[in-house]
Amino acid sequence: MSNRVTYGMVGGHLNAFIGDVHRKAINFDTRARLVAGCFSTNEDLNVQTAEAYCIDESRTYGDYLEMAKAEGSREDGIDFVVICTPNHLHYKVAKAFLEEGIHIACEKPLCFEVAEAEELKKIAEEKSLIFGVTYTYTGYVMPKVMRQMVKDGKIGEVVSVNAEYPQEWLIDELDANASDTSKFSTWRMDPAYTGIANCVGDIGTHIENMVNYVTGLNIKRLVATTNTFGQALDLNANIIVEYDNGANGAYWCSQVAAGNLNGLKVRIYGSEGALEWEQQKPEDVRYTPKGQATQVLSRGCGYITEAADANRIPSGHPEGYFVAFANVYRSIITAILQKKAGEPLSGEGLDFPTVDAGLAGVKFVHGVVSSAANGSTWVEL
Amino acid sequence: MSNRVTYGMVGGHLNAFIGDVHRKAINFDTRARLVAGCFSTNEDLNVQTAEAYCIDESRTYGDYLEMAKAEGSREDGIDFVVICTPNHLHYKVAKAFLEEGIHIACEKPLCFEVAEAEELKKIAEEKSLIFGVTYTYTGYVMPKVMRQMVKDGKIGEVVSVNAEYPQEWLIDELDANASDTSKFSTWRMDPAYTGIANCVGDIGTHIENMVNYVTGLNIKRLVATTNTFGQALDLNANIIVEYDNGANGAYWCSQVAAGNLNGLKVRIYGSEGALEWEQQKPEDVRYTPKGQATQVLSRGCGYITEAADANRIPSGHPEGYFVAFANVYRSIITAILQKKAGEPLSGEGLDFPTVDAGLAGVKFVHGVVSSAANGSTWVEL
Amino acid sequence: MSNRVTYGMVGGHLNAFIGDVHRKAINFDTRARLVAGCFSTNEDLNVQTAEAYCIDESRTYGDYLEMAKAEGSREDGIDFVVICTPNHLHYKVAKAFLEEGIHIACEKPLCFEVAEAEELKKIAEEKSLIFGVTYTYTGYVMPKVMRQMVKDGKIGEVVSVNAEYPQEWLIDELDANASDTSKFSTWRMDPAYTGIANCVGDIGTHIENMVNYVTGLNIKRLVATTNTFGQALDLNANIIVEYDNGANGAYWCSQVAAGNLNGLKVRIYGSEGALEWEQQKPEDVRYTPKGQATQVLSRGCGYITEAADANRIPSGHPEGYFVAFANVYRSIITAILQKKAGEPLSGEGLDFPTVDAGLAGVKFVHGVVSSAANGSTWVEL
Amino acid sequence: MSNRVTYGMVGGHLNAFIGDVHRKAINFDTRARLVAGCFSTNEDLNVQTAEAYCIDESRTYGDYLEMAKAEGSREDGIDFVVICTPNHLHYKVAKAFLEEGIHIACEKPLCFEVAEAEELKKIAEEKSLIFGVTYTYTGYVMPKVMRQMVKDGKIGEVVSVNAEYPQEWLIDELDANASDTSKFSTWRMDPAYTGIANCVGDIGTHIENMVNYVTGLNIKRLVATTNTFGQALDLNANIIVEYDNGANGAYWCSQVAAGNLNGLKVRIYGSEGALEWEQQKPEDVRYTPKGQATQVLSRGCGYITEAADANRIPSGHPEGYFVAFANVYRSIITAILQKKAGEPLSGEGLDFPTVDAGLAGVKFVHGVVSSAANGSTWVEL
Repeated sequence: MSNRVTYGMVGGHLNAFIGDVHRKAINFDTRARLVAGCFSTNEDLNVQTAEAYCIDESRTYGDYLEMAKAEGSREDGIDFVVICTPNHLHYKVAKAFLEEGIHIACEKPLCFEVAEAEELKKIAEEKSLIFGVTYTYTGYVMPKVMRQMVKDGKIGEVVSVNAEYPQEWLIDELDANASDTSKFSTWRMDPAYTGIANCVGDIGTHIENMVNYVTGLNIKRLVATTNTFGQALDLNANIIVEYDNGANGAYWCSQVAAGNLNGLKVRIYGSEGALEWEQQKPEDVRYTPKGQATQVLSRGCGYITEAADANRIPSGHPEGYFVAFANVYRSIITAILQKKAGEPLSGEGLDFPTVDAGLAGVKFVHGVVSSAANGSTWVEL
Repeated sequence: MSNRVTYGMVGGHLNAFIGDVHRKAINFDTRARLVAGCFSTNEDLNVQTAEAYCIDESRTYGDYLEMAKAEGSREDGIDFVVICTPNHLHYKVAKAFLEEGIHIACEKPLCFEVAEAEELKKIAEEKSLIFGVTYTYTGYVMPKVMRQMVKDGKIGEVVSVNAEYPQEWLIDELDANASDTSKFSTWRMDPAYTGIANCVGDIGTHIENMVNYVTGLNIKRLVATTNTFGQALDLNANIIVEYDNGANGAYWCSQVAAGNLNGLKVRIYGSEGALEWEQQKPEDVRYTPKGQATQVLSRGCGYITEAADANRIPSGHPEGYFVAFANVYRSIITAILQKKAGEPLSGEGLDFPTVDAGLAGVKFVHGVVSSAANGSTWVEL
Repeated sequence: MSNRVTYGMVGGHLNAFIGDVHRKAINFDTRARLVAGCFSTNEDLNVQTAEAYCIDESRTYGDYLEMAKAEGSREDGIDFVVICTPNHLHYKVAKAFLEEGIHIACEKPLCFEVAEAEELKKIAEEKSLIFGVTYTYTGYVMPKVMRQMVKDGKIGEVVSVNAEYPQEWLIDELDANASDTSKFSTWRMDPAYTGIANCVGDIGTHIENMVNYVTGLNIKRLVATTNTFGQALDLNANIIVEYDNGANGAYWCSQVAAGNLNGLKVRIYGSEGALEWEQQKPEDVRYTPKGQATQVLSRGCGYITEAADANRIPSGHPEGYFVAFANVYRSIITAILQKKAGEPLSGEGLDFPTVDAGLAGVKFVHGVVSSAANGSTWVEL
Repeated sequence: MSNRVTYGMVGGHLNAFIGDVHRKAINFDTRARLVAGCFSTNEDLNVQTAEAYCIDESRTYGDYLEMAKAEGSREDGIDFVVICTPNHLHYKVAKAFLEEGIHIACEKPLCFEVAEAEELKKIAEEKSLIFGVTYTYTGYVMPKVMRQMVKDGKIGEVVSVNAEYPQEWLIDELDANASDTSKFSTWRMDPAYTGIANCVGDIGTHIENMVNYVTGLNIKRLVATTNTFGQALDLNANIIVEYDNGANGAYWCSQVAAGNLNGLKVRIYGSEGALEWEQQKPEDVRYTPKGQATQVLSRGCGYITEAADANRIPSGHPEGYFVAFANVYRSIITAILQKKAGEPLSGEGLDFPTVDAGLAGVKFVHGVVSSAANGSTWVEL
């Protein structure tokens, strides 16, 4: 029993794609059971979703505040809540559950305002609550391998970074006057629902998060251009960053780049070697020790000693996106279990994107938007 | 309730890697619940496994025959059994459960002898039972796309096939005198446990299965060489096949091919175009219409109309091996549900490797071993 | 006779790598004969080189000024001069030969100062002389194909560019105190010989040139960071550009990026599709029409109608760097022959990098250095 | 003068593609001058070609026998002859020049009959003449690197080979009744001009040659299937070979494999590692030491100590097909110069495909055709 927890969800009704991904990812390791939820503001949909997952009627809530209070008061209340509502609600929902002493797993972006993020961080720290932000991609094994390699000095001091996240899927938005623009996209282009940035918030933050995860470097300042192509929000952005160690990096994110599906790619150059990884080929890392041949490191192979525990299946069997997501939850749940047991977080329990990662993302978005709005001048983060 | 089933397992104790993969794959869609098991002949391990999965003591069995009888007699007996014992037990276990009227999901290879496979097929047909054989790789979406493209005539008549499945992991077996040979490998080299073939049975059958799945072609006859390198069983094999349409194909499987992890790859050449797919990059198919540029088709993209329902997540998010496995089980469970509902199998319920695929695999293994033993003469299948 | 020309060289002695490349490239089409030279300021080496190429003693010069005058006065003087001296001499040598009415093929960078480049351009135009600058990479066939595709509207309006040129070879320069720094590199780090930039001048200019060649876009302004890592000149640079059509692009060049040999790569994104090309795989272009599968276009294939005349050998036979270089010279020599025949330049004779490309490169270098020196502010070109 | 030679050509008129390739390849190193020729049986074309290359009228021959005699009698007769006639003339022409004591560079296939090849070999040996057969692909640097690595034991004992050469270009021949079949293809399908095999002779021999070059292994026996698809000669073939060391290999060649241009690829598996190379990406070799990560070895890099002298230009600048061809001629000419100087062949002078390679190719073709004709039984070579 001590290695099991229960959870609830806010958002994630039956028709919501990402809700199912969260449930499958959590379910992968069968340590957490879904027992409560406020899945939709549409009552029918809410009830249908609850029924589909055998949630007791008494724990099917029409309102997230009610849910937070009720679950916070129950003896057997949920251990953590998964927040996968539209982005503009993250802050309010997270705050409500934190205040009830419930651990959090929140979709990214954490929230829209830096002050909000800092507030959430403050509450979580004061109440000693686990706060995970589901930046999925750091759940892949190979970024963990790279991170350890960088820590071990395998590439020396980082001297340059080139990272990108191009997609094609909003290319039709380039024609601002097109009448067939999908509702969904229109929603994305409304700052009330999306915040001050579209592309930079949605995918640019993954670049920031992944580079930080792998290298440990923080962005000191940045200059940026963004492109709206006549829309309310950005569809493409170029960013030059300066890290706290003085090195520079270049980030590019786009949702109008034909031929790219979900092309998160990071290349880290150091004084002693380089590392390269792509989300769409997550099993491989290209590693070049200075002056030597490039090596293709494949997940799960015996010659990789770093992060060996993170593997689920033998090399050559692609683990994929769901496993990465499951790994994020594995770490969050381990952390919650360690917390419940009164132990300090350790090992796996330390390896997930926290509210700090969420805060860094919000700052990054504000930095990029601010620089672009001010003639691409340097903005300190 | 009508869309849920229960299942039991024979084999697959806590330390057995593949048992966990089966459970995760089944669990992915949460339509089947594990309620019974005979996980190990080791009593402690059996009980521990049962407890870990909250199996009732009354349905934790020390013997598979006892389990078959008991579950076959219960009103709420399991709908299907997953067989993931060592290979030499598949036949006996499958037969026992079939005779009790229980649907089957059996690891590959189905069994060792052609007569055994034919017997299992006969019983399953007589009793109208679903019999799935878990050739995982056909669960990937892109082979489904290729299959439909071939059916639709996109590459015309198949004129040549080149398919392979190289691995490196048994390369140390090349030194037959090495003292550090692992127990596991020794086990693999014992025909009593492995059957008449090692490499051809273990991975060669996946080539045969995948080519058949994609093209619909059956092997009429074949010539083969196998290489044992001083061991009791084969570690490498080259096979030329002739299909029922008169075309030839070349198959190569190896477990001593340095630099290859799990390199199943099929290339299908037709009179109007070609298709190419690799298991380690499962999201992409290379498609060349005759005389035109090669196209990289990516899973989930809107321009792929074939097998569109099979996708789980948007393009650019690698689905991976677990999802392929989950897809095989999704189809098997759908078939069982259709059967329980008294409906003819249809759609998804028809798209899984059956006992026929298992039988074809056993015939293939016997054909290859027989040809190699007889100076690489043609053997009719 | 009318389709043959003669040429001389300044620089390019026997031990100079690039001199031999120029000679082989010119020799590839056997339309130009080397008849004069001032190959080295080292008299012995000069004479040895002349002898190796059967240059008459009377046309072996110890001084480029003397050579320009003598060849300019001869009835049978050289048609053009190849300038492959160290960079700091390009301007002086080019001017001397222009003033004698001799056509020019000059290594890049054209010169160090914008005023110098403009002066050369002015003289060439006044005297109606051909002035080629040997940006080799536009000599490859596939950039020509891309250029035509862009012109034909295949990718619509360009909305974003990502281009780069990383190399590894100066990575040891990161340690500014290392005692084993090679002489050659030291020379490169001396502005007297290299000009105001190292990496940006040497390889960054190829990015600028290639993007302009393919898209026709000119850079309106740019912001940049450069990294010297304690050396006198830059080893790494990140640049965000804005084109005259309002789109942005990101350029990265580096000589300290482990794992990269000569990695010029351009990616052009348009409203209707995208194009991608890498110098190290010059035979292929990746082309994605919006919403469709990525196509791998291979040089020489029948389905490529653009720039079909530029091919030398059938598809699948890699043409390589020498052929690209030969193509640049083919165009320059065709232009010279057209000029000699009193015809307007046309076709092939218009397809080579001119003094305008050289001038654009010099401006680009000054822009990048100036922006970096001024806190990464916008610099208009 | 002692490092220059002269040559003549039989075949290779102005409209013949391959003649120009030979001339460019020879011309690349400017050590051999074309001074005589019998370029075509069409008198006008012969004369035009001679004029285009400034061949003296007295050395422009209408008949190859006349040419052999005349050049063999001249004091300043050609040092070697390049034979690039249609295949069915190779034997006769080569014999004529050998008998006049003239060194040979002959296109492949050497000839049609084993007895002919043996006769040519005998004459060449008796007269101590250099006899090169222009299997171009062994002229690439990376096969030379692999060859040295195999010799040095880097991959241990060879245990398996997989090699192939697929092309697409004759795919329209699959429709034997099509009326638009090109003349050229018709010619290829006539045994009088092409010999007993089409695809196997044209490209299959390159597989045989390359594997032998890299590994040193000779084929002891083989089984094969060929496919004519209703044509007179083969368009596709699968071959299983057994080498003199007991290992097996699989070869596949095809001219009806959509999506393949010129796909020669060899994969050599040894007890200690593996090597992989593709003609269309000639700069890279994939090398996997057993149990370690795959390394991408790039031509010209400092970490490659094998065959370092063979490089022409720095790493990252693709050398391509012409340079490979030039390298074959460099070796042939070096051998001729060594022979003329009365020195034993050494170094470069030993590294070209000789009449032995030509003979092995003829035997290979006969073996494949014979096995296929006899129900795919083993044929000893």
